[in-house]
Amino acid sequence: MRKRSEKRLSKSRTNYTTKAGRPPGSIVHLGEIKVTQPDITLFDYGSENLTEVTFRSIDESRHYPRAQDTLWLNVHGLHDTRVMEEIGRRFGLHPLVLEDVANTQQRAKLDEYDGYSYVALRTFRYDADAHDAISDQVSLVLGKNFVLSFQERPSGLFEPTRNRLRQAGSSLRHGGAAALLHALIDAIVDQYFVVVEALSADVEVLEDQLLAGKAKRPTEEINHYRREIQEIRRSIWPLREVLASLQRLPGSHLTSDTQLYFRDVYDHTIHVIEHLDALRELIGSLFEIHQANVNNRMNAEIRMLTVVTTIFAPATVLTGFFGMNFQHMPWLAQPWGWQLVAALMAGLGTLLITALFWRRWWVRENS
Amino acid sequence: MRKRSEKRLSKSRTNYTTKAGRPPGSIVHLGEIKVTQPDITLFDYGSENLTEVTFRSIDESRHYPRAQDTLWLNVHGLHDTRVMEEIGRRFGLHPLVLEDVANTQQRAKLDEYDGYSYVALRTFRYDADAHDAISDQVSLVLGKNFVLSFQERPSGLFEPTRNRLRQAGSSLRHGGAAALLHALIDAIVDQYFVVVEALSADVEVLEDQLLAGKAKRPTEEINHYRREIQEIRRSIWPLREVLASLQRLPGSHLTSDTQLYFRDVYDHTIHVIEHLDALRELIGSLFEIHQANVNNRMNAEIRMLTVVTTIFAPATVLTGFFGMNFQHMPWLAQPWGWQLVAALMAGLGTLLITALFWRRWWVRENS
Amino acid sequence: MRKRSEKRLSKSRTNYTTKAGRPPGSIVHLGEIKVTQPDITLFDYGSENLTEVTFRSIDESRHYPRAQDTLWLNVHGLHDTRVMEEIGRRFGLHPLVLEDVANTQQRAKLDEYDGYSYVALRTFRYDADAHDAISDQVSLVLGKNFVLSFQERPSGLFEPTRNRLRQAGSSLRHGGAAALLHALIDAIVDQYFVVVEALSADVEVLEDQLLAGKAKRPTEEINHYRREIQEIRRSIWPLREVLASLQRLPGSHLTSDTQLYFRDVYDHTIHVIEHLDALRELIGSLFEIHQANVNNRMNAEIRMLTVVTTIFAPATVLTGFFGMNFQHMPWLAQPWGWQLVAALMAGLGTLLITALFWRRWWVRENS
Amino acid sequence: MRKRSEKRLSKSRTNYTTKAGRPPGSIVHLGEIKVTQPDITLFDYGSENLTEVTFRSIDESRHYPRAQDTLWLNVHGLHDTRVMEEIGRRFGLHPLVLEDVANTQQRAKLDEYDGYSYVALRTFRYDADAHDAISDQVSLVLGKNFVLSFQERPSGLFEPTRNRLRQAGSSLRHGGAAALLHALIDAIVDQYFVVVEALSADVEVLEDQLLAGKAKRPTEEINHYRREIQEIRRSIWPLREVLASLQRLPGSHLTSDTQLYFRDVYDHTIHVIEHLDALRELIGSLFEIHQANVNNRMNAEIRMLTVVTTIFAPATVLTGFFGMNFQHMPWLAQPWGWQLVAALMAGLGTLLITALFWRRWWVRENS
Amino acid sequence: MRKRSEKRLSKSRTNYTTKAGRPPGSIVHLGEIKVTQPDITLFDYGSENLTEVTFRSIDESRHYPRAQDTLWLNVHGLHDTRVMEEIGRRFGLHPLVLEDVANTQQRAKLDEYDGYSYVALRTFRYDADAHDAISDQVSLVLGKNFVLSFQERPSGLFEPTRNRLRQAGSSLRHGGAAALLHALIDAIVDQYFVVVEALSADVEVLEDQLLAGKAKRPTEEINHYRREIQEIRRSIWPLREVLASLQRLPGSHLTSDTQLYFRDVYDHTIHVIEHLDALRELIGSLFEIHQANVNNRMNAEIRMLTVVTTIFAPATVLTGFFGMNFQHMPWLAQPWGWQLVAALMAGLGTLLITALFWRRWWVRENS
Repeated sequence: MRKRSEKRLSKSRTNYTTKAGRPPGSIVHLGEIKVTQPDITLFDYGSENLTEVTFRSIDESRHYPRAQDTLWLNVHGLHDTRVMEEIGRRFGLHPLVLEDVANTQQRAKLDEYDGYSYVALRTFRYDADAHDAISDQVSLVLGKNFVLSFQERPSGLFEPTRNRLRQAGSSLRHGGAAALLHALIDAIVDQYFVVVEALSADVEVLEDQLLAGKAKRPTEEINHYRREIQEIRRSIWPLREVLASLQRLPGSHLTSDTQLYFRDVYDHTIHVIEHLDALRELIGSLFEIHQANVNNRMNAEIRMLTVVTTIFAPATVLTGFFGMNFQHMPWLAQPWGWQLVAALMAGLGTLLITALFWRRWWVRENS
Repeated sequence: MRKRSEKRLSKSRTNYTTKAGRPPGSIVHLGEIKVTQPDITLFDYGSENLTEVTFRSIDESRHYPRAQDTLWLNVHGLHDTRVMEEIGRRFGLHPLVLEDVANTQQRAKLDEYDGYSYVALRTFRYDADAHDAISDQVSLVLGKNFVLSFQERPSGLFEPTRNRLRQAGSSLRHGGAAALLHALIDAIVDQYFVVVEALSADVEVLEDQLLAGKAKRPTEEINHYRREIQEIRRSIWPLREVLASLQRLPGSHLTSDTQLYFRDVYDHTIHVIEHLDALRELIGSLFEIHQANVNNRMNAEIRMLTVVTTIFAPATVLTGFFGMNFQHMPWLAQPWGWQLVAALMAGLGTLLITALFWRRWWVRENS
Repeated sequence: MRKRSEKRLSKSRTNYTTKAGRPPGSIVHLGEIKVTQPDITLFDYGSENLTEVTFRSIDESRHYPRAQDTLWLNVHGLHDTRVMEEIGRRFGLHPLVLEDVANTQQRAKLDEYDGYSYVALRTFRYDADAHDAISDQVSLVLGKNFVLSFQERPSGLFEPTRNRLRQAGSSLRHGGAAALLHALIDAIVDQYFVVVEALSADVEVLEDQLLAGKAKRPTEEINHYRREIQEIRRSIWPLREVLASLQRLPGSHLTSDTQLYFRDVYDHTIHVIEHLDALRELIGSLFEIHQANVNNRMNAEIRMLTVVTTIFAPATVLTGFFGMNFQHMPWLAQPWGWQLVAALMAGLGTLLITALFWRRWWVRENS
Repeated sequence: MRKRSEKRLSKSRTNYTTKAGRPPGSIVHLGEIKVTQPDITLFDYGSENLTEVTFRSIDESRHYPRAQDTLWLNVHGLHDTRVMEEIGRRFGLHPLVLEDVANTQQRAKLDEYDGYSYVALRTFRYDADAHDAISDQVSLVLGKNFVLSFQERPSGLFEPTRNRLRQAGSSLRHGGAAALLHALIDAIVDQYFVVVEALSADVEVLEDQLLAGKAKRPTEEINHYRREIQEIRRSIWPLREVLASLQRLPGSHLTSDTQLYFRDVYDHTIHVIEHLDALRELIGSLFEIHQANVNNRMNAEIRMLTVVTTIFAPATVLTGFFGMNFQHMPWLAQPWGWQLVAALMAGLGTLLITALFWRRWWVRENS
Repeated sequence: MRKRSEKRLSKSRTNYTTKAGRPPGSIVHLGEIKVTQPDITLFDYGSENLTEVTFRSIDESRHYPRAQDTLWLNVHGLHDTRVMEEIGRRFGLHPLVLEDVANTQQRAKLDEYDGYSYVALRTFRYDADAHDAISDQVSLVLGKNFVLSFQERPSGLFEPTRNRLRQAGSSLRHGGAAALLHALIDAIVDQYFVVVEALSADVEVLEDQLLAGKAKRPTEEINHYRREIQEIRRSIWPLREVLASLQRLPGSHLTSDTQLYFRDVYDHTIHVIEHLDALRELIGSLFEIHQANVNNRMNAEIRMLTVVTTIFAPATVLTGFFGMNFQHMPWLAQPWGWQLVAALMAGLGTLLITALFWRRWWVRENS
């Protein structure tokens, strides 16, 4: 658990101090560097043909002649500002778009520019060992006949989409840039379900431990999961607006069929948020179970104390009584004297314990 | 109670992992298979005639010639994708509709398509033994002159509607597809009242047990009911919007009279939600009653401890006093010595207990 | 208090199970039967004349010839469906209106129909002995020149309105149906103030008891009032919308002066809701006072225990010390030996009690 | 503090019972009578001249001939319905306006009538001794060239406005009725800051007492201030809407400059509300400080008990041991025997206290 | 920590009492005087030239002839009303603007006037020693070709903007007044990130202390940070609306490119608010960790008490038993008698401690 709290709020905000004061539109990479070398892949496709190229460096890409209807350029690794600038120049992107791509701590948002739209999204991956949801940023730019995608590192999320593109008859080949954009966003939102499922399985393991009174550091664990859920929820929440706006994108970018598909992703997003809400309520009830455990233990402790005191206190008095040095004391001379006292001690103890349980029953009945 | 928590959040999300990565519009059945064999029934009716057919398989249905004004096709069991595809082809449904029908974990929603509308709803059944609200999905498709209904398993919910259709003079026979849609939704919403009533009876049994201090596992029980209520509420909540939109459906689907009936169902839905809110508040107060019980018991425990200590501690000192081996001690030689001590012990105990009760009264007066 | 909780949530929902499955528009009386015989009164009035008739049965009313401008028909008792049907037929009411009138568990609402509007409202009466707000439903139908009112039982609420009608010069006689509707709603809303005032007086009695530590069953009492307040609030809340809509009723039903009067009732309703909110906050603080009481008592209990232990524990050790059988012990032979020990016991006790109080002060200073 | 709770919710609602059932528009004075004799002052002014008259009775005012552009009539004391009726007749006020003026428990509101607008506001005065915010109602009527103001008693609030009017060159003299209305509302809102400042100073005194553990009746005091804040906030909240509407008043009542001034008052109102919100949060944290105090004290109490028990329990056993009557016991004959036992007692006590503190440290490290 | 609470709510409201009653539009400086001498700097620039002048007094500035396209006048220190009045006269500012500039306790707001707009903002600076966010007000006035900025004291925030202006080729030189306004607001919002980062680092230090059980005054510290966060959030929250309105400013003030930049600052503001929300939730969980610590300590205390009592109570009874003066007692004559008793004491103690731990385990299993 210690390791978990290493992931700190302050960390995710690192570098802002260095950025403050720079003019807006400066391309400053904010975030960890997650790959050593940016990696650029290009899909140039129409319904008939598809060309797939991977560039070693940005200079290589300069000489690529565009051939097909739709172009998908994917970049892994965002810290090389030279790459960014070159792509920006080639596709005529506004400096603010490049700034947003490089700043990997964006909220999900849709910004419309002249001739293209910028979409920022967050992806999640669940680290089952650290019980941690790890978040990356994906930036998408939708132009009339191109889609640019920028990721912090390869995630494998878009592999199924690539495979569908590679199939000659795939419907995706006809759909143009908007259908490709939908496919990418759909892949990201589908991944949310996987992450939430894994997270909720972990929370239920914790619930079982709590119900069995076997959780190791309950307060910390509960708080850890609560924060994870809040963080994911906060990242996904603005996506609703993004997807609602995507359905109403002006211009000829979207066919009415693509609109239906975006409405479908919108519904999925709402669904994920509802699952997160249910999970949040579950976490809330875990806290109550934990408090009930704590109360039960304290009650048991005090009860034990009461029982021990109730058994031995009168016995102490009895033995003290017959230890007094009065010259005239009853039964001192009788051979059965000490046995009588022992019997009295046992009797008194039993009586008081009975009274104690009766009282507990009485309190329960009348509380 | 253990058995109750078997119904897990994670379970209801099962299979998402297998679905992630598939292209949208794929018909993948998400959910438990609840009947072995899909079961297809058809009502083909006008104000005069009614034909009722049950098909053993989808192939059989191919040769059925449509005769009357309005058609109602009901399917139980959604895991056979061949059936889905055939119906989709016959009625010209969009692949997303079929995907939504097969995915039995939808939120209530209304999606409008060209020429028809898709409505997803959740039904509830209350398992009185497990104190569990069991939820199924019902999908409805409203076309100009047909209604399709898809259920996970036979529920008996639509039986009264079928009987009304079978009666020659029934107003439902004239109302067309929209009136039939209303009848089906009305049947589902009426069932909500029944479930909420059963649930609230169970919660009141729990309240009685708590007030009598006799609940077995209070925290767990309270949390169980709270989750049930939240789950039902979450399922019904989006239905408000669905019904509000149904009143404003464009095109010639709805007569103004049917609009009035949809407004009526809308009111009922609001009413159910208000009952659930009242129930949720009741659950909240149950938690407080439980905490009061816990506090009362701990107080009683500590009071017992104090009483026992207060009675016997001074007695112990007294007996110890006269057990000291001083050569000069008062009263040791008197025959009434030990009786005096016994009297003193009783007196001191009484005095202290009195002080204790007086103090309690004093605290109460001044707190 | 036991009796209070007899009024159960489930009870108010009784009969829904029997209703589920019936076609919409069926007139089924939901609720308790509160009068044995429906009672029909008719006011037929214009600015000049007024005829007041009471019918023994619905058949009697058939032969009544309408004479004046405005008609007010009031019905007490809603379980006789024959009466409902006859009135429905006479005034051309939609079956859904009759269903809503008979179902006495409606939310406040305004439904507009062709040529008339239906208003459902809840009245309250405060049973000061059971500390219970008792709720009835009033249904009002406003037509161009008639008002129908349906109540579960005579409440006396409309008596002042009747008296104003009976006065020849009353402005109400000229105002038409809308002014009469306003008068009836105004009477109902005025009654809310009376109920909230009574309820708040009772809550303040409870507050006094809590501050004096003399409440009998604090948790139960607090929860009882909280539920009463929530229930009234929930009933009145939708009335805001009803009254806002009434101000904007289309058609020639309302004069601009009547609109002003409806705005006035609207303001009153907001005012009642604010009083209920203040009351709800008061209830919240009662709970905190109660918890402070509980904590104070437990603290006092533990303090008593500590004091007793602190006084007698060292004394016990002292007496034990001089009860040891060593041959060489100091002071055993001195005549003042036992007095010294007694003095020591008293001294030690005093010292420890002083330390205890000093510590408490110290803790208070530094906490 | 006792005296504080004398100001009761129920009191502020007094008389509603007597009013219920009366026709709307009846002028019934609701509230305490705060002055014995209504007091009517009139400012009749233009940019050049100003006439200031005070009337002893309403009859006197009948013969006053209006001379200047703008008229300001101020009334202190609202219980004399004859005065109200006369003013109503003279300025052509709607009966509902007069009813609202007389009912001194209005929410802040703006009602527009033909040719004039009615504004209800609440003023506050802080009674520093009782720590009580005392609220009065001010009613303002804005006509084309007159302002009427009605107060429950003289408050001195409008004195600066009167002085500005009396100055010949004052800009207020040219501004017409709307500028005067603004001046009056501005004076009232400025007073809010003063009250909130005084209240917040008192709350901070309480905070200091709580931090020092010296508050006398913490729960009661905290609740008192919470209610005061809630009550003020509830009174000021609707004023936002009033002021927003005033900026958009139709007709020629407002110059664009006056609109700017009303926007300014609007900003002030928002500001007061934010201060109240900050104060409410402060109160919330006071409650937590108080609870921390309570917990600390209980902990200290139990710790004392544990320390005392831990020191004396083993000593008791030791002395008892050497008080046993066995014929063969070690050290009984040694002269240093009792000293050894005393040393053992001290040693054991020290050891156990050390263990206790070590354990506390251990728990702290690992909790 | 004591020093922290010196920063009081009441302080920030100081002087309101003195202002109440003054006519609106009076320039009254509300707030601390933070510099002794107002300091006026002027940037007069176009794309080609830039003149930078600093004035010693307001009189000096009178003779400055304006030369270039765009003018930026910056003032530090707001308490000299003569300076304010002169600037107001020169730029034709409304008295309300000057009043708002001088009142340094404004909410963030945008007020549009004829020909210019007034923006009030709050800047923050984090005092790492006092753990305090210190807030100043910045007022900005945007005219067609000028920007006025008013600060309470020099903050260094605008230095990077000045440097960018001084560079001949900077894009800022072409952008006109709106671009300059954006640069200034952007600098302020960037600073928010820095402050929130520092604050969140401090909160995490506190979290570590709490988890280690080493926080000194947990309740006070947690409340301190909660208030800081609330205060910052409350200051930034209205900025959202300001920036949303700035994007829609009417007139020719804004180019479409500047609108994009304002949208960018808007996004940053939302981002800061989300970080503050995350921080607020973190604070909430700190409180729970603290409460868990308190509970753990009390549990440990009571457990210690139980253990001590359980070990020594039976031993006391045993020794007392053999200290009784019966003539016939078993084992008194045996030489191994006292050893047997010692063994019994040890045995009983062990047994009871074992029972105690078994019981604790049992409670944990079944709670």
